[in-house]
Amino acid sequence: MGYSYPPSLRVLISELSKLPSVGERSATRLAFHLLGKDLGEARRLADSIVVAKQSVKLCQECFAYTEEELCGICADPQRSTRTLCVVEKPTDVLALERSSGFRGCYHVLHGLWAPLRGVLPQHVRIAELLTRIERLRNLPNQAVQEVILATGTTVEGDATALYISESLVPFGLHVSRIAQGLPKGGELEYADDMTIVHALDGRQMLR
Amino acid sequence: MGYSYPPSLRVLISELSKLPSVGERSATRLAFHLLGKDLGEARRLADSIVVAKQSVKLCQECFAYTEEELCGICADPQRSTRTLCVVEKPTDVLALERSSGFRGCYHVLHGLWAPLRGVLPQHVRIAELLTRIERLRNLPNQAVQEVILATGTTVEGDATALYISESLVPFGLHVSRIAQGLPKGGELEYADDMTIVHALDGRQMLR
Repeated sequence: MGYSYPPSLRVLISELSKLPSVGERSATRLAFHLLGKDLGEARRLADSIVVAKQSVKLCQECFAYTEEELCGICADPQRSTRTLCVVEKPTDVLALERSSGFRGCYHVLHGLWAPLRGVLPQHVRIAELLTRIERLRNLPNQAVQEVILATGTTVEGDATALYISESLVPFGLHVSRIAQGLPKGGELEYADDMTIVHALDGRQMLR
Repeated sequence: MGYSYPPSLRVLISELSKLPSVGERSATRLAFHLLGKDLGEARRLADSIVVAKQSVKLCQECFAYTEEELCGICADPQRSTRTLCVVEKPTDVLALERSSGFRGCYHVLHGLWAPLRGVLPQHVRIAELLTRIERLRNLPNQAVQEVILATGTTVEGDATALYISESLVPFGLHVSRIAQGLPKGGELEYADDMTIVHALDGRQMLR
């Protein structure tokens, strides 16, 4: 019978090691850190996980994270759906808002077309984008005029942009791609603000 | 008014970024990972934090982690306090148990003497070690005969070992230091098993 940590500590380490980029050794270190804190502090972290998970949902319009029906951007009468900016994930919305004067609305795909990883177009929210554009078409001052494809400049980001661009042909809209101001292979989440500004400014019309 | 994440998501990110080596960006990534899981899975992590924090305490003898009064080693009649192995932290006990045939008992200091960081000998469990040795002195077959100082070979580990060695002079015990089979500057937690075996085997008598 080998010595091991007490059962509740082993469970904690096992749960922590399910987090991304957290191996068993990091999980052990995190667990020991938590054991060293007082119960109130540990409970605050525990509660924040459950509360966030229970409160946060997707905006019914653009699929960004929100605690209401609509996110702060879609609910803002100053923002317009005439220009829709399509991004891969919710962090990208924050990066664009932080760095640019963009006054349009967003559409969060929650993923990219990645055939090599088995992610097909129907697994990301491309159909929802087309439905949304169709729905807005007949509303005064809300009809989409331009779609900015702001997925990252990775192979998957480029492929997804191209796929969406093709899907948008029947709508006769302007479709643009953010400029390659982003370093090739880069992801929006890790770009500095000026790179994002240049990428938005220098966007190229696809049709 | 700038756009930001919903309140409960900001709280979660803030709590996660209090963890060691987790910056705001990693915390955001972890938070998004958790939001992507189902509620049951998120709750399992949250519960494991609180349960571990509530259940795990320190062994009354050696200060290793346990859910009982005594840890599995101190409670084991096959293990003897005649040889006590002094380590910095609970992970070190696991590392030694995993890699060596050591049949003695442990004493966990929960820290090292680190004057530059303001950690004094009274902040780690050195006084408890002396009290324990004194208490065991008159018990048949339990009197400590050798203390193995198995703190890491860092400056702080060496200083702590030297300090304890001096404190033990009045007891007239054998006091040894694990061999420098550990690479200089290394920590027990990150050493491979054979290095730990060599370090234990090659220990040098200090008096």
